[in-house]
Amino acid sequence: MSSSAGALNFDLRVWSAAHLAAVEASLSDWVKADAPADLGSAMRYAVLDGGKRLRPLLVWAASEAVGGNLDATQRAACAVELIHAYSLVHDDLPCMDNDVLRRGKATVHVAFGEAQALLAGDALQALAFELLAPDVGTVPFEIQARLCRLLAVAAGQAGMAGGQAIDLASVGAKLTQAQLQHMHQLKTGALLEASVMMGAACGQSDQRARDSLKTFGAALGLAFQVVDDILDVTQDAATLGKTAGKDAANDKPTYVSLMGLNGAHDYAQALLQQALVALRASGLSETRALEALADMVVNRNT
Amino acid sequence: MSSSAGALNFDLRVWSAAHLAAVEASLSDWVKADAPADLGSAMRYAVLDGGKRLRPLLVWAASEAVGGNLDATQRAACAVELIHAYSLVHDDLPCMDNDVLRRGKATVHVAFGEAQALLAGDALQALAFELLAPDVGTVPFEIQARLCRLLAVAAGQAGMAGGQAIDLASVGAKLTQAQLQHMHQLKTGALLEASVMMGAACGQSDQRARDSLKTFGAALGLAFQVVDDILDVTQDAATLGKTAGKDAANDKPTYVSLMGLNGAHDYAQALLQQALVALRASGLSETRALEALADMVVNRNT
Repeated sequence: MSSSAGALNFDLRVWSAAHLAAVEASLSDWVKADAPADLGSAMRYAVLDGGKRLRPLLVWAASEAVGGNLDATQRAACAVELIHAYSLVHDDLPCMDNDVLRRGKATVHVAFGEAQALLAGDALQALAFELLAPDVGTVPFEIQARLCRLLAVAAGQAGMAGGQAIDLASVGAKLTQAQLQHMHQLKTGALLEASVMMGAACGQSDQRARDSLKTFGAALGLAFQVVDDILDVTQDAATLGKTAGKDAANDKPTYVSLMGLNGAHDYAQALLQQALVALRASGLSETRALEALADMVVNRNT
Repeated sequence: MSSSAGALNFDLRVWSAAHLAAVEASLSDWVKADAPADLGSAMRYAVLDGGKRLRPLLVWAASEAVGGNLDATQRAACAVELIHAYSLVHDDLPCMDNDVLRRGKATVHVAFGEAQALLAGDALQALAFELLAPDVGTVPFEIQARLCRLLAVAAGQAGMAGGQAIDLASVGAKLTQAQLQHMHQLKTGALLEASVMMGAACGQSDQRARDSLKTFGAALGLAFQVVDDILDVTQDAATLGKTAGKDAANDKPTYVSLMGLNGAHDYAQALLQQALVALRASGLSETRALEALADMVVNRNT
């Protein structure tokens, strides 16, 4: 691929591989198997050996842009992934999307039962905040508190959970682009944006940098969903590792149903440019990983 | 009642009334109605106008014993109640206890549907941590971080969620007293103990005081459950405001099934004494509210 990141002589695969290995190791350490009565197994099943880990990589990329505290960054990277993982477990439950396939394997409630899946999701959310507030270590209390706040707001009613509530209410409804946008800004955008802002909160940055990163994160979050909608109609389940075509089957409004396939594609590219422009206005020098991740989000095929 | 608290010329009702009014007002402020698509209504329904608010009162009592930060205390008091409220919403779901009556009214999933109840519980957990980490205000970052940690550990797999997993696995099983104890220490004890320790974390205390408060909180947490088991067989639904006799109906092990009614009663009284002894060993001077709350927990009839 001849991306802007390539032109900057930055190899995202090499950069990602090192961080991914460390994130996987930390997740495996922190999501313990010894939780009572199979709960630990269900939690590990939900979190380990799967997922692109986009959110942890965004945390690391943003933290590197501001020279962030390393311990805080790894904790933030894992915490945001735990929130993402819990949301998928609950989203797959019969009372929600009732999905049986996720990341190429049976969903948690299929493998462990509904009650255990519910508890595993609940416990993963709690564990995310536990990771952010270690009793020992090298993370200043101010960073701990800021990370907790950013994650709580992004996960809660003004973020992910709120977006899911709108999603529930919008099945079968005709949404305008503005309404669809608002739903996705909360449902998936908030946590992606928070990943960037949590990375930034691990270090020092001025207001201009934070504003730019926020714009970058918001554009990236929207672009992610637009591309998700495109992939839902252009890829099969084997490639995606999850049920394909389910938006149409569930009569859910999508960017593709609203703008057509070409329109959605053009919109994703425009959002990518918006994200890259914001980054260049940040005044931060080391933004190659953020650029490359944005490029990857928009030009991915799974 | 001629309790030890009465002898100390401390009126729990007067003390509680002031704190309860403030806690209700703060909960009503912080659990906003404007969350999207009925989510706010479901969250408020789950939290407001109901419950004894034992956990917030424990937070306040412990904080007063150590001269705690007032803003932090109110936030901790409300946060622990939000965790409690969310756990009830999820616990009542069809895949868990499948209960239709709670605090004298229809459970959240009966009133709002299962999916909305699931999301309301999830959003309440996130909101609890949001309250603990305000971006403005007068709570030092160190207190914010400590409160987040205490609550996350108590809510997660080593606390409440873990206890619920054991509970799930123990239906129809014969538990020893030690196993039953362990289940309840996690399921209900951890959050009650955390209420005490979060109150203490709002101020300064020495190791001796913290150890004593921990022992107090653990004994109180167990006593609470023993009394709950007693009330489940001795009171009717109208008095309890929830389904009575459901432990026996669900073939769940209880302190009453294990020790008999008299044995359970004696055990609750012994735990009360244990709690009071720990409190007197704390070296703290203002412990009357904690004493009176312990007395109330054991000698309540709802």
